[in-house]
Amino acid sequence: MNQVIELLNSHRSIRKFTEQPVSQSQVNSFVAAGQAAATSSFIQACTVIQVNDTGKRESLSEWAGNQAYVKEAPVFLVFCADMNRHKISCDMHEAEMLSGFTEQFITATVDCGLFAQNVAIAAESEGLGLVYIGGLRNKIDLVAEALELPELVYPVFGMCLGYPDQNPEVKPRLPLEVVLKQDAYDDSSDKDLIAEYDHQVREYYATRTGGQKDMSWSEQISGMLQKEARPHMLSFLQSRGFLKK
Amino acid sequence: MNQVIELLNSHRSIRKFTEQPVSQSQVNSFVAAGQAAATSSFIQACTVIQVNDTGKRESLSEWAGNQAYVKEAPVFLVFCADMNRHKISCDMHEAEMLSGFTEQFITATVDCGLFAQNVAIAAESEGLGLVYIGGLRNKIDLVAEALELPELVYPVFGMCLGYPDQNPEVKPRLPLEVVLKQDAYDDSSDKDLIAEYDHQVREYYATRTGGQKDMSWSEQISGMLQKEARPHMLSFLQSRGFLKK
Repeated sequence: MNQVIELLNSHRSIRKFTEQPVSQSQVNSFVAAGQAAATSSFIQACTVIQVNDTGKRESLSEWAGNQAYVKEAPVFLVFCADMNRHKISCDMHEAEMLSGFTEQFITATVDCGLFAQNVAIAAESEGLGLVYIGGLRNKIDLVAEALELPELVYPVFGMCLGYPDQNPEVKPRLPLEVVLKQDAYDDSSDKDLIAEYDHQVREYYATRTGGQKDMSWSEQISGMLQKEARPHMLSFLQSRGFLKK
Repeated sequence: MNQVIELLNSHRSIRKFTEQPVSQSQVNSFVAAGQAAATSSFIQACTVIQVNDTGKRESLSEWAGNQAYVKEAPVFLVFCADMNRHKISCDMHEAEMLSGFTEQFITATVDCGLFAQNVAIAAESEGLGLVYIGGLRNKIDLVAEALELPELVYPVFGMCLGYPDQNPEVKPRLPLEVVLKQDAYDDSSDKDLIAEYDHQVREYYATRTGGQKDMSWSEQISGMLQKEARPHMLSFLQSRGFLKK
């Protein structure tokens, strides 16, 4: 295994950071590495808002469900799926832009995923740690307002960045056979494999350094899926010009 | 700039591969690295179908718009957003799964993006090259059928992998100021910056080794956005249990 793959395999979320500052040139280099990721049909549909303002950080932290690290991390980035610059491009050529397609929503959202993962790896390669913040979608309308996002731009997730002040264990993942299938989708062994994996996750949660609990993977997932999942998302996205057809 | 960031910055799509085979243990290690990426609330919602069958490869190649490399690449992977295993988990605990939320569609799709980008970087770190294949969504219903995807699973994109038999230039990206903003979205300089960037892209297309053309970025984007974008996507996704609310 080479050092890059070792780096990828050693990922764990970092939620506590030292006081060591992260320079703007470091942030710029991480974001430039994000830009270097593949982009669907060259659309380059990801925009990053770096949030420095203390008041905005406090609001975002609260809206994300009182996640203190959103406020405290040396750097906080919001990754936005962005088709506003495509509107600008169409206007430059007096072309009518056909928008609102689900396909466009997918390509812009995937662009953000590829981009952000490059940012994450660039940061980790320099010894920083990070955690993705999906909780921004709790109050996505307030986030969009605070960041002055125009139509055709939505905040997909945030990311806290800084030097780690904790050293959590790597969380075990599903058996490879569950996530890698040959030629067709065959889930006939999945239930048994998940049940085995459940023991491993229960062991991980029972013995990890921080926040021990008694919980298996399937238990955690089934608990989560009995609740509604941010039911405001569709109407918000439609109001911003996405997912209309 | 460290070597990892150099690797990230050197990405370009590879569409022509040597005969050098890629072993199954290499593929397994790339996919395991994919699993190591962050995953929203631990949902692990990405499944990879490795397509080896020659007949299926030919069909996929044709459906993706006759992209020969889909057939010819040593390895072809299809990344699927997958909530089937969450249904299995709910059944294991006799829990009712609330599905169809746009939020779940986003988390599963983003999971695939983070996962796939780790696979891409792992492969590039070993000297392989790759290209993402969004064209699978041209005929997404046929792809889903050929790969026997159950409800709550959809193919987001494919990826061709192998050792490069070409050495294309890195494509220039938008100026950093367009994609990285401070504290709020401000696009007042974007039009000018895009116009400058247009010259750079035109120069790149005019002088690159393969497939020279006379085209700027905003021209390419505005041309693309005057056409409908895979208008079948929403009804397909809804028929598979996604984006219902």
